[in-house]
Amino acid sequence: MSKKKPLILITNDDGITAPGIRALISVMNEIGDVLVVAPDSPQSAKGHAITISETLYCDKITIDADAPQEEYSCSGTPVDCVKMATHEILKRKPDLCVSGVNHGSNAAINVIYSGTMSAAVEAGIEGIPAIGFSLLDYSMQANFEPCKKYIKEIVEQVLANGLQKGVVLNVNIPKLEASEIKGVKICRQANAHWEEEFDKRVSPMGREYYWLTGKFVNEDKGEDTDEWALSQGYVSVVPTQFDLTAHHYIQELNSWEFNKKQ
Amino acid sequence: MSKKKPLILITNDDGITAPGIRALISVMNEIGDVLVVAPDSPQSAKGHAITISETLYCDKITIDADAPQEEYSCSGTPVDCVKMATHEILKRKPDLCVSGVNHGSNAAINVIYSGTMSAAVEAGIEGIPAIGFSLLDYSMQANFEPCKKYIKEIVEQVLANGLQKGVVLNVNIPKLEASEIKGVKICRQANAHWEEEFDKRVSPMGREYYWLTGKFVNEDKGEDTDEWALSQGYVSVVPTQFDLTAHHYIQELNSWEFNKKQ
Repeated sequence: MSKKKPLILITNDDGITAPGIRALISVMNEIGDVLVVAPDSPQSAKGHAITISETLYCDKITIDADAPQEEYSCSGTPVDCVKMATHEILKRKPDLCVSGVNHGSNAAINVIYSGTMSAAVEAGIEGIPAIGFSLLDYSMQANFEPCKKYIKEIVEQVLANGLQKGVVLNVNIPKLEASEIKGVKICRQANAHWEEEFDKRVSPMGREYYWLTGKFVNEDKGEDTDEWALSQGYVSVVPTQFDLTAHHYIQELNSWEFNKKQ
Repeated sequence: MSKKKPLILITNDDGITAPGIRALISVMNEIGDVLVVAPDSPQSAKGHAITISETLYCDKITIDADAPQEEYSCSGTPVDCVKMATHEILKRKPDLCVSGVNHGSNAAINVIYSGTMSAAVEAGIEGIPAIGFSLLDYSMQANFEPCKKYIKEIVEQVLANGLQKGVVLNVNIPKLEASEIKGVKICRQANAHWEEEFDKRVSPMGREYYWLTGKFVNEDKGEDTDEWALSQGYVSVVPTQFDLTAHHYIQELNSWEFNKKQ
């Protein structure tokens, strides 16, 4: 690997053969030296799960013999992939970790369920500038071409400016033609939740089981949110942190009557 | 179920038969009407994972025929359990969700990997006041007796005061005799991380595999952190939020040169 180019770690949660990560690899090969460590199978909605009760496999593979990147396929979660890359495969800390491009939105509360974003957060915890990219199209036939310009622009900005320790970027891209995307907006995470409905069925053995399904409900009308920006045709960028402390609430809790009886 | 008593949902990540959840159930039975929906097997470090690619089972079970609570054993993650309880089993929203008592610490960055805390966060997303409890003792023979007084006190305070929407509590309890615990401290999440080491082995079939292991590193010397409070013999209470926006960083990102070329 050459000396001047940044070392870029790539992972995702849709699995190493998903079109989204292949698109991300092609853009990153224009910018740096690329290492891919990604799940061997789909790991959507795995959040920040890590594998501690099972063994992990991690095998070097070749998907495109003509491409310059090294690739490893890992049996674990997206967060496992980041740990495996940084602590087992790489000799030095990468300059950047990018995760995705996810097939589907990770805006609003989806950030918390997302394997894609959890991988970026894990890199952030390890002090690596990190970005998660998602396209608002769940299809495995999604068109990632319009994303590429924005991915490149955002990555170049992060490499030029750095990111404060404790912050990673959550980037979502609307499902639009390149000419229809209006630009980049810095946003906050919209307040939203999922209203679950369980689809109850009976197995051929006569046992009841469920499929988790649900409806996304955005209760936040703010025009500074990621959901709003995406609805207006912008690429949304939310600075995302892993200090989960609700600092504003510490004073309130200190007014409660703890320790009275001791 | 009687009318005046609060309806309390209990879950955990160590599984429905773990001593920690049995201790929590015994305390909650003194306070309210209890529904238990917990994983049928250990789900530690599953973070905010949900089950979308596999089916879920959820069976009513009786562990203690003399006890008043209803119990369901679920094949999914802790977050699945909360969704199953609130959207499939319960007719009305519970007044409180408590998760744990976890066998082991969920202080500092552990909050982000923790199934126990993710269950509490999921309840918080659904607008239910929620608390995750953890004891700093990984042993399945841990002594939960000294915890009980503090669990009761904190639950009573939450029921009396309520919790602001968007905030859940992360409570960690030191492994000490009751007489040695100094009281409750409201804290912020310490900055810390895990330094991974992969234990590489070879299977009987000749294939290399790994076990994830690691060392917890606290780089935060602040005396307002959960790690500090626990080291001094206090029960730590961290208000924890799921708006992950790094609001302080939005201005910085707005100074970057996005949208220049458009």
